[in-house]
Amino acid sequence: MAGKSVPISPLAPKTYPDLPDIDGVRFATAEAGIKYKGRTDVLLVLMDEGTEAAGVFTRSKCPSAAVDWCRENLAAAHVVAHGMPASRVSARALVVNSGNANAFTGMKGRETVKRTAAIAARAVGCRESEVFLASTGVIGEPLDAGKFETVLGDCAARAAGGPWLGAAKAIMTTDTFPKVATATARIGGVEVTINGMAKGAGMIAPDMATMLSFVFTDAPISGSALQALLSKAVKPSFNAVTVDSDTSTSDTLMLFATGAATSRGARRIEKPGDPALKAFARALDALLLDLAQQVVCDGEGARKFIEVTVAGATSARSARRIALSIANSPLVKTAIGGEDANWGRIVMAVGKAGEPADRDRLGIFFGPHRVAHQGERDPDYDEATVSAYMKNERIAVKVELGLGAAGDTVYTCDLTKAYIEINGDYRS
Amino acid sequence: MAGKSVPISPLAPKTYPDLPDIDGVRFATAEAGIKYKGRTDVLLVLMDEGTEAAGVFTRSKCPSAAVDWCRENLAAAHVVAHGMPASRVSARALVVNSGNANAFTGMKGRETVKRTAAIAARAVGCRESEVFLASTGVIGEPLDAGKFETVLGDCAARAAGGPWLGAAKAIMTTDTFPKVATATARIGGVEVTINGMAKGAGMIAPDMATMLSFVFTDAPISGSALQALLSKAVKPSFNAVTVDSDTSTSDTLMLFATGAATSRGARRIEKPGDPALKAFARALDALLLDLAQQVVCDGEGARKFIEVTVAGATSARSARRIALSIANSPLVKTAIGGEDANWGRIVMAVGKAGEPADRDRLGIFFGPHRVAHQGERDPDYDEATVSAYMKNERIAVKVELGLGAAGDTVYTCDLTKAYIEINGDYRS
Repeated sequence: MAGKSVPISPLAPKTYPDLPDIDGVRFATAEAGIKYKGRTDVLLVLMDEGTEAAGVFTRSKCPSAAVDWCRENLAAAHVVAHGMPASRVSARALVVNSGNANAFTGMKGRETVKRTAAIAARAVGCRESEVFLASTGVIGEPLDAGKFETVLGDCAARAAGGPWLGAAKAIMTTDTFPKVATATARIGGVEVTINGMAKGAGMIAPDMATMLSFVFTDAPISGSALQALLSKAVKPSFNAVTVDSDTSTSDTLMLFATGAATSRGARRIEKPGDPALKAFARALDALLLDLAQQVVCDGEGARKFIEVTVAGATSARSARRIALSIANSPLVKTAIGGEDANWGRIVMAVGKAGEPADRDRLGIFFGPHRVAHQGERDPDYDEATVSAYMKNERIAVKVELGLGAAGDTVYTCDLTKAYIEINGDYRS
Repeated sequence: MAGKSVPISPLAPKTYPDLPDIDGVRFATAEAGIKYKGRTDVLLVLMDEGTEAAGVFTRSKCPSAAVDWCRENLAAAHVVAHGMPASRVSARALVVNSGNANAFTGMKGRETVKRTAAIAARAVGCRESEVFLASTGVIGEPLDAGKFETVLGDCAARAAGGPWLGAAKAIMTTDTFPKVATATARIGGVEVTINGMAKGAGMIAPDMATMLSFVFTDAPISGSALQALLSKAVKPSFNAVTVDSDTSTSDTLMLFATGAATSRGARRIEKPGDPALKAFARALDALLLDLAQQVVCDGEGARKFIEVTVAGATSARSARRIALSIANSPLVKTAIGGEDANWGRIVMAVGKAGEPADRDRLGIFFGPHRVAHQGERDPDYDEATVSAYMKNERIAVKVELGLGAAGDTVYTCDLTKAYIEINGDYRS
């Protein structure tokens, strides 16, 4: 998208929070010229000894080389940890680049990943297995690891506790705004901090980009407890957002805990079920939902944020599938983009999901306004009122199936001409 | 879309075939003013005594009242046929209207369907169970059966063997051109004719329309044999096309056989396995594929016809799912609309299908040009050659998975700004 300027999403936050330093986390960004000139495209994060990690990755059957690398490192760490109780999932460096996804690059891609990890390990002074990697941008193009050679040593020397917004900017591709969030929580009376950043203009971008998110905390939590927290937290947040139903080869969400809060008296938490983790888990859930919703707000061409809730389903899985069928329907998304309370398209999307549904029990709401009841237009439906509601920037769609007690909520954006412009008028 | 003029699809056929009369089939169209003024919106088809029928309908869990009616009639006929060997699936009338889909209209919708069948039965002189119905257009609006009262009697009086293009026009909604096809085949030395028509601007249209298709033949074939032929023929044709992954509540494909060719010496065929049916089945397959491809060519906003072939899959089901994942991907469709040979998006769509795939064995072709081989860009890839190919109106995408011997082909169109205009800038 070099040379092409896309306006900032109207759904971008009006202000950004101030992210405090996280003890044990330092970082720096650099212009490595991977694809773009005159903008930062590499982020190196250094983490103190003792940092543990967890990750959730794309379900694509064609994942990027960096995704393979991170998965293997985490799996190996867990195997070691199980074999030798004293061992921990150790993370010392994170290298993220934009401009090239290093996906579908075959053996060359695997070599690039290995070499990048070696360069980072040397710059940071750690083992290669303690280096985590993520790449986003063009795919099918070999990524030259030499680009990292020239910048990572300098980044390591310059690394500092902020500014976080600068880090969030370095990992952007077609994002129109950087995405950050911060929270605090108490673990046994000691306050800990969580900072997070994300990128993604949907799951997607020209030449396919990605959803990447990195979350850091000074809380002393074991890798296995982190993994349990993250796997649970991702379901109602990052796994509940869709821009266009296209899943990237590179989706990566990682959570790092430096444990530095032990110096302020925090007790190390080993088990995910530890009651002392409750407040932390709640704060993490809220932070991930915030970041995930920011990704939707930067969905390519988005003008409206859409929350889709399904109630009265026979199971949570069924509710999720019906909600995603609505959220991924081009006809629903174009109708809402056109500010049209077109419940017929909602019925269509419910019907095509293949899940239990009874046409004659369906209730449909736009915001507080019930437009359909028991399979027919609501007799009290007032077109002017609902049309006025559809002009809002945030639209809530709710479907009551009337079959059971399960429900779910997912988030998406509208489908506009700007999406076609960004993705169709572009040449690779 | 009244008052809004959409240009005829560039993919429309340059000429239309002359459809001959089918012995035993007569029809007429009328302006019933259901939604639009100044255009035909009702089609009545009369079929001689002895006509048998088969049908394939939407898989939506929220089907229209007309779909329910047709399914029940066919099922009842088959039950009777099984109980009493002499009985047959009898079809004497088909009523199709555009402008109102009579879907999501609750009890009122069911009453409209019953009353319409009664009006048609009276006009034609047959039983209500011999009347088949299809509706397309606005949904959620009650359809007034009184509209049929005023026109069906006159239609029955005027009914004639042609012109078929007029019939195809009366069932259009957002279609930019009428869709017809004709074929002949020999059954035991006697030539029989098959005529078909279809409507659908994809599966979809403003306020949700539909794919409707009606096929007529003078061949003497039993209802159960027709059903077997149709159920088989639909898989590589109508079930292999997608415009935007949105399935209508009203999709209907019906096949009627008057049996009139017996008067020219054709033998009645009872069983689908009868070898005398081979040529007929082949002709039917080709005719349905032709009609289904015409529907894709009229996909809303379509500028390019896209054929997606998957080879080397572990099973036919897996090949179909991967092919549809590619054909339904907004990123693939916008890239092809932008004439961009973006194989990264093909890899993404293969990866997200959830079916067996090995990144490092993938081969990808645009037309005759191999762009990727064994998970990497083809070393012989020539950008200028492939870019020139992408300017064609018909684009073939082929993926070789390299895992097994199964394959499949589906058809779609590109995703353009005109799709958003038609579906988003519209108000219901």
